[in-house]
Amino acid sequence: MLKATIVGSVWSTKRLDDVPPGSILEVEVDAGARLLAFDPLGCGAGERVIIATGSVAAAWFKGPSPPIDALIIGSIDEDTPSEA
Amino acid sequence: MLKATIVGSVWSTKRLDDVPPGSILEVEVDAGARLLAFDPLGCGAGERVIIATGSVAAAWFKGPSPPIDALIIGSIDEDTPSEA
Amino acid sequence: MLKATIVGSVWSTKRLDDVPPGSILEVEVDAGARLLAFDPLGCGAGERVIIATGSVAAAWFKGPSPPIDALIIGSIDEDTPSEA
Amino acid sequence: MLKATIVGSVWSTKRLDDVPPGSILEVEVDAGARLLAFDPLGCGAGERVIIATGSVAAAWFKGPSPPIDALIIGSIDEDTPSEA
Amino acid sequence: MLKATIVGSVWSTKRLDDVPPGSILEVEVDAGARLLAFDPLGCGAGERVIIATGSVAAAWFKGPSPPIDALIIGSIDEDTPSEA
Repeated sequence: MLKATIVGSVWSTKRLDDVPPGSILEVEVDAGARLLAFDPLGCGAGERVIIATGSVAAAWFKGPSPPIDALIIGSIDEDTPSEA
Repeated sequence: MLKATIVGSVWSTKRLDDVPPGSILEVEVDAGARLLAFDPLGCGAGERVIIATGSVAAAWFKGPSPPIDALIIGSIDEDTPSEA
Repeated sequence: MLKATIVGSVWSTKRLDDVPPGSILEVEVDAGARLLAFDPLGCGAGERVIIATGSVAAAWFKGPSPPIDALIIGSIDEDTPSEA
Repeated sequence: MLKATIVGSVWSTKRLDDVPPGSILEVEVDAGARLLAFDPLGCGAGERVIIATGSVAAAWFKGPSPPIDALIIGSIDEDTPSEA
Repeated sequence: MLKATIVGSVWSTKRLDDVPPGSILEVEVDAGARLLAFDPLGCGAGERVIIATGSVAAAWFKGPSPPIDALIIGSIDEDTPSEA
């Protein structure tokens, strides 16, 4: 998984019917790259999150797997020590 | 998923029978890399899109999964704020 | 798989119910990139480990596959020669 | 998928029985990286091709999926405009 | 797949029961990155090999797929021309 920070969201009216309703957020991973991830948790800008990528993201959805390859699986507690 | 801009298309007459009919477009992701993605939405040059990659792209097709590893799942609304 | 060193852990109270209980550790792979990986082995800071990534990590879990894309599958013996 | 140019081939006598008979070609993707891909189309050196990677490449084969993670799915027509 | 050279091996006594018995070798791919790959072929240091990565590596094993994401599928013949 990747540690990332939420930096924005994308709006898409013209999209495949199979894209599930909900937020697609833009995140910046700690190394600097940016991804779009589906957000089932209601996260906000600046929030630190954990991203799972690949087919495991699609498999999380109930029913037929949607074409989603990145999923926010958790929000990182603010009091997580940065290095253990 | 990746945010990308459509920059071209590829034409392939000599190809596997299992490649579904339709457009394969070249896209440039925001970080600069280029990919080829299947386009079920009829997108055009310069359009900003959302790309899903990996086996979730193939799984989107009805019937046996084709050898397609990147899919345009949506077009980004022009009025999406660039940073939220 | 990737050779990596454990550098920390992340705590996440707000997370998907499908994330399995257990530790999610931050690891630094030898090339310098950082990942988060599920740890079923009880590893500690500084320990050298082997990381499997992608859907094979999720498939390791019993029952429905969780949205986990990186798994510590082993700890590297301290007496492993660095080059064979 | 990736746009690539065929730059060579590899010969492997000592290999897993499950590697399907046929050519494994070395290709250079436009960004410069090199991959090995299975070629069902009979492509030649210098030919421009489309490469699909990951499990979708293995799933293309009839019967049990072989340990193949990159497949040439098409040859790019010479008259494809480089930018559309 | 990736062309790589075997540079070492890792020993892991503390590991998941589901990691299959056999060698896990460290390989350096031609671009310089290093990976760990399962070796069913009995390869040695300096040998040039073909690596398949991702879920296709796990799917090669008989029975339940182990958490293995890279597999040596062949050894490159010494007389392979470097460029065709």
